[in-house]
Amino acid sequence: MKKFMDEDFLLSNETAKKLYHDYAEKMPIIDYHCHINPQEIAEDRKFDNITQVWLYGDHYKWRMIRACGVEENKITGTASDRERFQMFAEALPRAIGNPLYHWTHLELKRYFGYDGVLNGDTAEEVWNLCNKKLQSDEMSARGIIKMSNVKCIATTDDPADSLEWHKKIKEDPTFDVKVLPAWRPDKAMNVDKDTFPGYVETLGGVVGRKLATFKDLLAALDERMAFFNEMGCVNCDHGLEYVMFRPASDEELEAIYQKGLKGEAISECEAEKFRTAMMLHLGAGYVKYGWVMQIHYGALRNTNTNLFKKLGPDIGVDAISGRDSSGALFQLLDAMDQKGALPKTILYSLNPNDNAILQVAMGCFPSEGVRNKVQNGAAWWFSDTLPGMVNHMISYASLGVLGNFLGMLTDSRSFLSYTRHEYYRRILCNQIGIWVENGEYPDDIEYLGKMVQDISFNNTNEFFGFHC
Amino acid sequence: MKKFMDEDFLLSNETAKKLYHDYAEKMPIIDYHCHINPQEIAEDRKFDNITQVWLYGDHYKWRMIRACGVEENKITGTASDRERFQMFAEALPRAIGNPLYHWTHLELKRYFGYDGVLNGDTAEEVWNLCNKKLQSDEMSARGIIKMSNVKCIATTDDPADSLEWHKKIKEDPTFDVKVLPAWRPDKAMNVDKDTFPGYVETLGGVVGRKLATFKDLLAALDERMAFFNEMGCVNCDHGLEYVMFRPASDEELEAIYQKGLKGEAISECEAEKFRTAMMLHLGAGYVKYGWVMQIHYGALRNTNTNLFKKLGPDIGVDAISGRDSSGALFQLLDAMDQKGALPKTILYSLNPNDNAILQVAMGCFPSEGVRNKVQNGAAWWFSDTLPGMVNHMISYASLGVLGNFLGMLTDSRSFLSYTRHEYYRRILCNQIGIWVENGEYPDDIEYLGKMVQDISFNNTNEFFGFHC
Amino acid sequence: MKKFMDEDFLLSNETAKKLYHDYAEKMPIIDYHCHINPQEIAEDRKFDNITQVWLYGDHYKWRMIRACGVEENKITGTASDRERFQMFAEALPRAIGNPLYHWTHLELKRYFGYDGVLNGDTAEEVWNLCNKKLQSDEMSARGIIKMSNVKCIATTDDPADSLEWHKKIKEDPTFDVKVLPAWRPDKAMNVDKDTFPGYVETLGGVVGRKLATFKDLLAALDERMAFFNEMGCVNCDHGLEYVMFRPASDEELEAIYQKGLKGEAISECEAEKFRTAMMLHLGAGYVKYGWVMQIHYGALRNTNTNLFKKLGPDIGVDAISGRDSSGALFQLLDAMDQKGALPKTILYSLNPNDNAILQVAMGCFPSEGVRNKVQNGAAWWFSDTLPGMVNHMISYASLGVLGNFLGMLTDSRSFLSYTRHEYYRRILCNQIGIWVENGEYPDDIEYLGKMVQDISFNNTNEFFGFHC
Repeated sequence: MKKFMDEDFLLSNETAKKLYHDYAEKMPIIDYHCHINPQEIAEDRKFDNITQVWLYGDHYKWRMIRACGVEENKITGTASDRERFQMFAEALPRAIGNPLYHWTHLELKRYFGYDGVLNGDTAEEVWNLCNKKLQSDEMSARGIIKMSNVKCIATTDDPADSLEWHKKIKEDPTFDVKVLPAWRPDKAMNVDKDTFPGYVETLGGVVGRKLATFKDLLAALDERMAFFNEMGCVNCDHGLEYVMFRPASDEELEAIYQKGLKGEAISECEAEKFRTAMMLHLGAGYVKYGWVMQIHYGALRNTNTNLFKKLGPDIGVDAISGRDSSGALFQLLDAMDQKGALPKTILYSLNPNDNAILQVAMGCFPSEGVRNKVQNGAAWWFSDTLPGMVNHMISYASLGVLGNFLGMLTDSRSFLSYTRHEYYRRILCNQIGIWVENGEYPDDIEYLGKMVQDISFNNTNEFFGFHC
Repeated sequence: MKKFMDEDFLLSNETAKKLYHDYAEKMPIIDYHCHINPQEIAEDRKFDNITQVWLYGDHYKWRMIRACGVEENKITGTASDRERFQMFAEALPRAIGNPLYHWTHLELKRYFGYDGVLNGDTAEEVWNLCNKKLQSDEMSARGIIKMSNVKCIATTDDPADSLEWHKKIKEDPTFDVKVLPAWRPDKAMNVDKDTFPGYVETLGGVVGRKLATFKDLLAALDERMAFFNEMGCVNCDHGLEYVMFRPASDEELEAIYQKGLKGEAISECEAEKFRTAMMLHLGAGYVKYGWVMQIHYGALRNTNTNLFKKLGPDIGVDAISGRDSSGALFQLLDAMDQKGALPKTILYSLNPNDNAILQVAMGCFPSEGVRNKVQNGAAWWFSDTLPGMVNHMISYASLGVLGNFLGMLTDSRSFLSYTRHEYYRRILCNQIGIWVENGEYPDDIEYLGKMVQDISFNNTNEFFGFHC
Repeated sequence: MKKFMDEDFLLSNETAKKLYHDYAEKMPIIDYHCHINPQEIAEDRKFDNITQVWLYGDHYKWRMIRACGVEENKITGTASDRERFQMFAEALPRAIGNPLYHWTHLELKRYFGYDGVLNGDTAEEVWNLCNKKLQSDEMSARGIIKMSNVKCIATTDDPADSLEWHKKIKEDPTFDVKVLPAWRPDKAMNVDKDTFPGYVETLGGVVGRKLATFKDLLAALDERMAFFNEMGCVNCDHGLEYVMFRPASDEELEAIYQKGLKGEAISECEAEKFRTAMMLHLGAGYVKYGWVMQIHYGALRNTNTNLFKKLGPDIGVDAISGRDSSGALFQLLDAMDQKGALPKTILYSLNPNDNAILQVAMGCFPSEGVRNKVQNGAAWWFSDTLPGMVNHMISYASLGVLGNFLGMLTDSRSFLSYTRHEYYRRILCNQIGIWVENGEYPDDIEYLGKMVQDISFNNTNEFFGFHC
């Protein structure tokens, strides 16, 4: 029996151990997609207690605690931080086989030096230990980032954002980690949401003119892309419930835009036309600036109206859509490609059944001089689990070229999530070790060590052009 | 090499063996969803021969024998019971990797003490042994139930059913196993089937009045729910080809009902409106009585018209639908939740690709004081296999809280199927053992033993309120 | 650690080794579905160099090389054969976990006696070795076929094909391998493609009359089916993007045909009606001649318009469709069955998520005297990988009767692909060995050896009636 999460955690064979400890472990981190608040980096935020870090914004943990029947007040409500921590500690042991169990204990080990097990009985001990540690300077936002050997972070930012915190970080000579903005224009795409008219007004305010026509909106976005590009952005992201492809005339698009501005009801068909046009337009911009485009699709958001009304979005009641996007996805990528508007692209679906579809898509839009211009990104959100990552990796390897893979990202709101890169690297090294020790690939440790380092860091650095 | 199905069958590590033999093995059984005929319990049916038990009603076995090209007459026809048994015995060895192979030999071991292997050559020996055993008193319906350590059985019953056999069982002081009815109103939902007018008449007969309007139908169902509740029902079930959500006005619903009563053609859209309204109405009743609602969806039934005409429904020609229900499912649950009509719910899809979708759904409708008010049920029907259960369990654990799982049910028509609980428990203990021995969870055998017992029995007992 | 691809490659246990080396290894091969050009067999083609064999027509390899950012000219363009080989050799090592890695090294071992590893450094050595070997007589098309112990090959042929090369092979007494045509009428089905009018004219030319009406088209196809049957055909194939079922009247079909003849736009609905009618008509012919019908569905073809325009079809930019075909598939099979037009059928979906659906379908249309009249074929194309085959096999076994499985086919354009049968047999023997050594099936090596031989050869021979 292996000890619980010892130094060879998840490394089941000698090749895996060599690959991890000699090659992967020391590689720096590029966290190319996350939801970290740049203000917290700029101000080098410190945390009073572990509940602030772990439970103020982490809807993964809220789901798990709620699943155990705990009252909402003790999860997101007015209960004391200590009590909320207790609820988490008591629920956690039930979640055997869940990544939260591993994430939590990896974070306790790496950041707090705690080698025990968190549960209701040890909660007091862990609470005291963590909170003491959090008072030290090395446990500020920047301290954690440096300690985690992070070289580059790309956040997630709205086109209307002033990027003031990014400016401050850039101008601060005492912090040498790259913190780059990333463009996420979802609000400008959502012509069918009641937030659209207000958003257009905000964006108009930022560019200093009224966005009276669809062309005005596009011009405003173009202007903001130029600004983001100046600010170092190399990376954008789209969140779509599903991928659509529905071409439309300029007249149709203008009419839809006008309806959207007035807050009138937009049909599904109209929304699809609008979003298709936006993708085609923005894609050309991404190509112009050499940005990498990410598309995250397949999430059903805010499924629980009662909880949405009480707590808002991103509170742990999102779900997986089983809707098929394959036909439209290929039509969209092809249409973008035909008009020279297909940038380097990373595709993610929340539905693990789409793995093979996206991994085959990688081969369909090659580009000379670029390794897999279209990529399938790391196992995302509900697939970002041990079995989810293993399945994704094996499928990726069997359908594509694993040596080209871009590796891990946290997609997280927390500064303690960098251990997910360790988690991923262990799984990667273990899988390669399994293949080698089973006679499925030659035992060439140096070549494989290089491959592991590429997947851990170099491929991402090169693909995005981070120049780390 | 391990011996074929020895005492450590499916237990590949020491932790698994300890968990199974010291904790899981002796736990009693609650079979919370099955298709046992209560009359056979009331009358304590005995069986003349093994063909009666195994081959009179088991369409799993019919499929397998048919797959081997055997003529129908020797499967469901007039061939002798001995010959039908021979066909089964000859086909079985070809079905390596099929759960029927394990189920059959588990039943032979546990109920008949046969440790050999069933095939064409041993069929005569097994036939004689089983038939002799079946003459003993302990091999009556009740004898088997008692021997299997079953504490509670919930059957599947139509709202129009008099529940007379349930009454008889309840009133019989010599049998202390709880046998409860469970409400399954599919016939009342199927306004688009030609059985609808006749069914409404039957139901009207039971409540003693004509069900002239849709409101009359709902009132009749309300009356029957009250009756089922008095009779101890805590549990209901819906079989849907797919999940729909299509709200409609009272006028529309009345018009659809009238068309259904007259046997006129009902469009898919109309049927969806009718079923949506029924779910919303019935859900409120389930909440009122504190019942657990099961939804089984994704089955394409009676795909072979020629065989359906010859043999009727439930004869082994049902299939899996790949149709996506995710969007409507979340809309339906949310609508029920918003009007206070979402009971405790267990979701099953016949399509194993839906596992992740349903396991994420578990987190979306939490309720204070209840562990996972919305549950994903055990791997169902075509997924109720060794790999199907392992995949389901690993996915469940990675997306939900395995410690809250409701565990196994037989969903069977046979009294010998209780060994499926043993099969499941071995798989559960083995998987937990794998995690522990691989350093993925602490080696805390007492805590894990308790978890295994909860999943085997306690969670179900508590969730339904069986008070066993 | 096992040596890379040694004699016990993929055989992880003693039972597997016995089953493979004592039972499976020596079995001959029936390659019942491939895209080999019969002319090359008739003319006993020889190859100048390894690039001709491996890289002139293999879009799997093109995809992999393109994924590494290599310029198209060095893949399918005018670069020298030696340079193209270099590109392949340099890309290959990155493709760990991809079947190309195993296929390539199996072919190097079995046909060229090369036990090393192909990469950029060894490319020169391998190039010289292979090219020298290719000059020997045993490395002609026929030589390779004989050396591979192939007893029967079924190609893929258009109804308008004269089958002249098949005639020549048949009449040549010096070559005793059966090379049979197989009927693939896709072009006649594709009323919505711009190739349709020209194709009908070609077919009309072959039968010597104008195909003025839909009935004329059907009669011409009937005539060609009779001809194919005389030529030894026992096997047909349909490639469908998805399965449809949409009955139509004769008048509707005639009108659609006339539109198709004129090259007018055909709606999706019209195309579905046309294809449905064709399937129903052709199915009756297949039943008449006792042919086996294959249906391959779920491919999105030519997704990259720019590359399609440059290079044409089948060049490595096809993809997987996630569209659900389950409802229509069962309706189609049932409709064919009801009118006596359901032949023996083998179903393949490109989407691995359809495995369970198709494996359950196997049980729905039984036929006395035939083992699984409806079969799920081997893991196809993007699923024809090590994990793809293992998943397919385990799922097949758990849902069907593995002993009835038809085993492997190459579906290949290359004469060196017969090692895929070896690859498959190793995986099969290993999986059975795992079950046996884990106590899940009795250790009856003779029975299992027979089963392995049946799946490797006998089942296919019997199902198609190849009489090998």
